[in-house]
Amino acid sequence: MAGASDHEDFFEGTEKLLEVWFSSSSDNEQHDLRNIDRKDWEDLLHIVRCEILSKMSNPDMDAYVLSESSMFVTKERFILKTCGKTTLLLAIEPLLRLAKNKCGLDIVFDIFYSRKKFARPEQQHIIHRTFEDEVSHLDKVFKNGAAYTLGRINRDCWHLYTLDEEGVTLPDQTVELLMWDMCREKMAIFTQDVSKTAAQATKESGISDIVPGVQIDDFLFEPCGYSMNGLLPGGYYITIHVTPEPHCSYVSFETNVPQESYHTLINKVLATFRPGKFLMTVFANKASLAKDNHKEMAKKDVKGYVRNDHQLCFFKNYNLTYSFFTRPVI
Amino acid sequence: MAGASDHEDFFEGTEKLLEVWFSSSSDNEQHDLRNIDRKDWEDLLHIVRCEILSKMSNPDMDAYVLSESSMFVTKERFILKTCGKTTLLLAIEPLLRLAKNKCGLDIVFDIFYSRKKFARPEQQHIIHRTFEDEVSHLDKVFKNGAAYTLGRINRDCWHLYTLDEEGVTLPDQTVELLMWDMCREKMAIFTQDVSKTAAQATKESGISDIVPGVQIDDFLFEPCGYSMNGLLPGGYYITIHVTPEPHCSYVSFETNVPQESYHTLINKVLATFRPGKFLMTVFANKASLAKDNHKEMAKKDVKGYVRNDHQLCFFKNYNLTYSFFTRPVI
Repeated sequence: MAGASDHEDFFEGTEKLLEVWFSSSSDNEQHDLRNIDRKDWEDLLHIVRCEILSKMSNPDMDAYVLSESSMFVTKERFILKTCGKTTLLLAIEPLLRLAKNKCGLDIVFDIFYSRKKFARPEQQHIIHRTFEDEVSHLDKVFKNGAAYTLGRINRDCWHLYTLDEEGVTLPDQTVELLMWDMCREKMAIFTQDVSKTAAQATKESGISDIVPGVQIDDFLFEPCGYSMNGLLPGGYYITIHVTPEPHCSYVSFETNVPQESYHTLINKVLATFRPGKFLMTVFANKASLAKDNHKEMAKKDVKGYVRNDHQLCFFKNYNLTYSFFTRPVI
Repeated sequence: MAGASDHEDFFEGTEKLLEVWFSSSSDNEQHDLRNIDRKDWEDLLHIVRCEILSKMSNPDMDAYVLSESSMFVTKERFILKTCGKTTLLLAIEPLLRLAKNKCGLDIVFDIFYSRKKFARPEQQHIIHRTFEDEVSHLDKVFKNGAAYTLGRINRDCWHLYTLDEEGVTLPDQTVELLMWDMCREKMAIFTQDVSKTAAQATKESGISDIVPGVQIDDFLFEPCGYSMNGLLPGGYYITIHVTPEPHCSYVSFETNVPQESYHTLINKVLATFRPGKFLMTVFANKASLAKDNHKEMAKKDVKGYVRNDHQLCFFKNYNLTYSFFTRPVI
């Protein structure tokens, strides 16, 4: 990815992740975020300090590979994930204006802003330096936001801001694995020294086998770093971002593919990247196929790892499971 | 309580709660925290900025009513709960020295430091002003401390610092209800205008019926405020502290009495004090009678209240349930 090209420098692979669910106070069926012009998206992303590198679509979703991570757009749902020193939260108010003025989507019925604790918070823009700063900004925009920190605030932890209001319960679920202290051998695949093309990295690494049948848009950065978006019919996506440099190695995996159990998927992801440490979050609402996944996760071990933290949050619409694992040093 | 005597002033009823479990590297059976001299406890509490008002004992435990809350001492376990502007964390290192030098208790095998978010953090001593400050102090003393915040960091939340290491699993459990926006009528009982003696306040309020059969040491402050300790055989205690002033009303209830279900107990406490808001924490380890209580709590409503937050933490030895409730305004 952009900043990762300088081997001397630390690169913050840790992403800021924003998901916004819109609706409209009018019944016009024409509301669709995908009608927003490319130029408008580019202007929005300029505020965030990143650029569109590639776009792929299916009937349900537009997926963009960005210079710093990814963006997904459906009719009424917006997902933006950006790493490095990007200023994602500066885009919130412009995004709400864009959705309202261009699509008549004037209601935000839920948002999820989340991120892992930064490795180097002091390198971030002032709006993102602490979670408290981020919450102050979000509280100015949203009246009833709820801010949580899961995990150990003095070690590894993960922050979340959401509205937690009663809402519609169309099936929804999101799984994220944020991984670091990565296996060097696996990470080498995501350098141009080893892989000639993004497609080669996707295949050699095993990424193409994680969720079979996805339509893939992948990108191998110069001299190293990797991003991919994958689409499946029905508005389902996967997205993977790799910062391979040994001194700041980091990989993120995210999907909203519904599964009753994520056990097999999680083990595939771990086998593909072999992190030394990872944290996992699973959101599932009451209508989701994954609604009881947290019960299985409470019982089942992840082979080769020790679970250091395990927390459950019961929100009005969603269950959230947070777990943090480390591989014991042998 | 001390600071509560000035009706013009805000009083921070919110307690800082410290629990330390000691053991010894030698087999000498003489180790006993209860052998520590009264003078030594007074010196320790002087650092914290509070005083002993009263002491009660049974064969398992010494219970002290303090000018700001309570202290409990068993053979190898120490509990200190202090409110107002007390400086509890300044006592940690002196306490460890006292336990080691006077009793040979040279190992701390677990600690729990917890508190609700202060209503007025700016009035606290610098060591207690933010949870981050408190964690920095504790991290200097303990190598592997784990710091958590449960609940909404931008609304009401509760902080915990613990060691979370594998340890002995003698049955153990602790229930705490921290209540505020209290019923004025109930609070009036804890003023000398209404109650002539502490015993009268204990009886009239219904406190004496919450856990029947306890040996009670109660104290009614001038002109208002109330503290009580209760002891039961086997090292079990209850403790209640009341700040009745309408502009800063606050009540805490805590017990380690083992019960398979705390449903009835919780309802008794709520009926006694009628808070507008309360948070509840339940710790139970694997050997505890209460080990499955969190499953019941996930399902059962608390009558008359809405649950705004519900979180579970699975530690190595303990399960912890955190819930926050409000009474809807009718």
